[in-house]
Amino acid sequence: MQQQIALSDDGRPTGHFRNTAYVINESRPHFDAAHAAGLMGIQGRSTAGRAFALGAGSIDNRPQMIDFVRCSYLGLDNHPAIVTGAIEAIEAHRSLHWSCARTRLNFDLLAELEATLSEMFCTRVLAFSSVMLANLGAMPILASGQLTSGRKPVIAFDRIAHISLAYHKPVVADEARVETIAHNDIDALERLCREHPVVAYVCDGVYSMGGNSPVKELRQLQERYGLFLYIDDAHGISLFGRQGEGFARSQFPKLLGDRTIIAASLAKGFGASGGMLMLGTLDQETLFRRYSIPYAFSVAPNLAAVGAALGSCKIHQSPELAERRRRLAERIAVFDRRVVTAEQGNSLPIRMIAIGSEAKAIAIARELLNAGFYTSVTFFPTVAQGKAGIRVCITADHDVRDIERLCDCILEKLTDTVGNGSGPP
Amino acid sequence: MQQQIALSDDGRPTGHFRNTAYVINESRPHFDAAHAAGLMGIQGRSTAGRAFALGAGSIDNRPQMIDFVRCSYLGLDNHPAIVTGAIEAIEAHRSLHWSCARTRLNFDLLAELEATLSEMFCTRVLAFSSVMLANLGAMPILASGQLTSGRKPVIAFDRIAHISLAYHKPVVADEARVETIAHNDIDALERLCREHPVVAYVCDGVYSMGGNSPVKELRQLQERYGLFLYIDDAHGISLFGRQGEGFARSQFPKLLGDRTIIAASLAKGFGASGGMLMLGTLDQETLFRRYSIPYAFSVAPNLAAVGAALGSCKIHQSPELAERRRRLAERIAVFDRRVVTAEQGNSLPIRMIAIGSEAKAIAIARELLNAGFYTSVTFFPTVAQGKAGIRVCITADHDVRDIERLCDCILEKLTDTVGNGSGPP
Repeated sequence: MQQQIALSDDGRPTGHFRNTAYVINESRPHFDAAHAAGLMGIQGRSTAGRAFALGAGSIDNRPQMIDFVRCSYLGLDNHPAIVTGAIEAIEAHRSLHWSCARTRLNFDLLAELEATLSEMFCTRVLAFSSVMLANLGAMPILASGQLTSGRKPVIAFDRIAHISLAYHKPVVADEARVETIAHNDIDALERLCREHPVVAYVCDGVYSMGGNSPVKELRQLQERYGLFLYIDDAHGISLFGRQGEGFARSQFPKLLGDRTIIAASLAKGFGASGGMLMLGTLDQETLFRRYSIPYAFSVAPNLAAVGAALGSCKIHQSPELAERRRRLAERIAVFDRRVVTAEQGNSLPIRMIAIGSEAKAIAIARELLNAGFYTSVTFFPTVAQGKAGIRVCITADHDVRDIERLCDCILEKLTDTVGNGSGPP
Repeated sequence: MQQQIALSDDGRPTGHFRNTAYVINESRPHFDAAHAAGLMGIQGRSTAGRAFALGAGSIDNRPQMIDFVRCSYLGLDNHPAIVTGAIEAIEAHRSLHWSCARTRLNFDLLAELEATLSEMFCTRVLAFSSVMLANLGAMPILASGQLTSGRKPVIAFDRIAHISLAYHKPVVADEARVETIAHNDIDALERLCREHPVVAYVCDGVYSMGGNSPVKELRQLQERYGLFLYIDDAHGISLFGRQGEGFARSQFPKLLGDRTIIAASLAKGFGASGGMLMLGTLDQETLFRRYSIPYAFSVAPNLAAVGAALGSCKIHQSPELAERRRRLAERIAVFDRRVVTAEQGNSLPIRMIAIGSEAKAIAIARELLNAGFYTSVTFFPTVAQGKAGIRVCITADHDVRDIERLCDCILEKLTDTVGNGSGPP
């Protein structure tokens, strides 16, 4: 059967997925204001713990800021074992990077890293130079039906799945049917599973702007209907599981099976640099090592990233992992006792201060910066229009007093705002 | 005016751009054969010059191979200044990587790198963690019309533009009209320029499988019709231009203007790790620093990549650049005197040995490996079906005698093949 669809007068289907011009026109004033306020595109240098020296020039003359922007939730990004791992790998090879595809020649240390991660996470792990590229490689393979016994799935994206997934909708839609469902809408997903023989769901594990996917319910749909799951757990890695396998992986059985792929970060909680995919079967591994586009046509993580990740594996296999998680939980609790957010009480390290107006969010983030705290002001297109706010990333490495001072500061600024007759939270 | 288009029975337009299942089904036997022959997905460790120790385990027990796969055309990927630059940057920060978007917090050394490259190449340079991500960020901005005075261009892709560009056709087509024209077809491009008020052309500068784009003719179309040019010059960087600005950039005037964007590599000829965009105007820079998706939602080159690139900048600003280019030219001439290819006599370092049959190409590449030479066997989808061959990347660092021996070996194996009644070259 052939159906018909309306095209615009230049002969193409009218933008189903993207309207970049609209995004730019709507958000440009806020971006410009945030840049003018010194909140975006700033530079700095690590000093100690979560502090950094703002700007350029001599370290001694720069103001020190406490950073709540970086997603190094376990505070590993300046851990000596990771820094040393990076340097040692470069020294062992007297090279940083080989310009060739992974389908050709690979650093022996990269093979060692993948073997170590595979054992730690009880899956087949492939490393990528970033999570964005790991996802890029997976989406067309998922669309092709090669992961679902040769039958193309209907692919349902969570409405707020990360842009590194949502970007690919038009590519996926060129080969398979794409649906976008409401955030965490298990009922809608179950309806799709009932209506179609093969369905795949694409979502985040831990969402970068707060919250998480309902993995338990997703697994139930998988068991009932054979639902294929593709979960980007970049923000969940290292925080859960015996050896840090992450929010998503730790909620699956020992064997991942042939219906689940988990993407994760080698940076963020893990503390190194790059991304990875966790695959459940040899067939999937073989397929990705041939047909993932960045695997075949882009580059591996460089040797510093590989060495840093090998260093982080050692930390993940030691009692230090539990100790750092304990410190993180303690610090999240300190924050939650002071500031009410939608995330209050969950065990994730992301907290969103809801503000609403973009201009007010920028003004408050600027006042926090004046007080020595660098936070992420978030607005459209990262969150919905009129839902601007401030993101705070808590880490195991923060000084408890700095968190307390940040909280006091947030409460003070929010009260000022309410006092000015302007609303939330 | 509304037009109509045929849809398949699941309600989606029938695959205009991609057919991943077809690619996999057609090429799988060749990939499997190349893997079985030990030609793909191999591992190794740098030893000296272009040699590497194949496999894992003790360096002393591994066979030494001469590498003709890596695209380090100036032999910089194990240059001491670049290796040292990587290590020093890590040591200065006691960090390798910060997990945050470039729209937030950047290493001060990254700002220094961009400023240095901008001055060297007389453009506004933005660094990315890979060329693939640099391209991903640019394509939707190009489609939006924001680079062409708010008018959406008709976007013509060269038929063999690199997959890191072609991948995005469905994304671009969701916002603008996409055309694919024959390789280097200036006449077809001029027809489009005559028919449409705003046209953009997306192509490579130096093509990874041999040859280059006709930059002079493209510039003429730009002058005549205002054609916007997006050129991925990953393989042309460092090889041309006063300070290594590359094949494409060196053919444009001192000021790049507002109608040309050049993507390039910080790896390959440049010898470090990562990618970059060369932009002509402040408006473009501001736009990309806000709206390039990987800039806002993925990661910067890590500090090792930044330090390595700063080390490479020093080499590019020294007489060593000319000396390495001289050595490269000499070695290309050595090859060209012995083996006839379609590329013979051009000043680029890529040579393609045309073979035809995928099975024969794999067999010959295996015999070259037996003789101690690692080359790239290329077949569909990298090149057209039935057009398999062997790619040889010549570098300034190759021993001339190794190139001579490789050539002898290629000629011998090709003669054997012809002797067996099998054809080319």
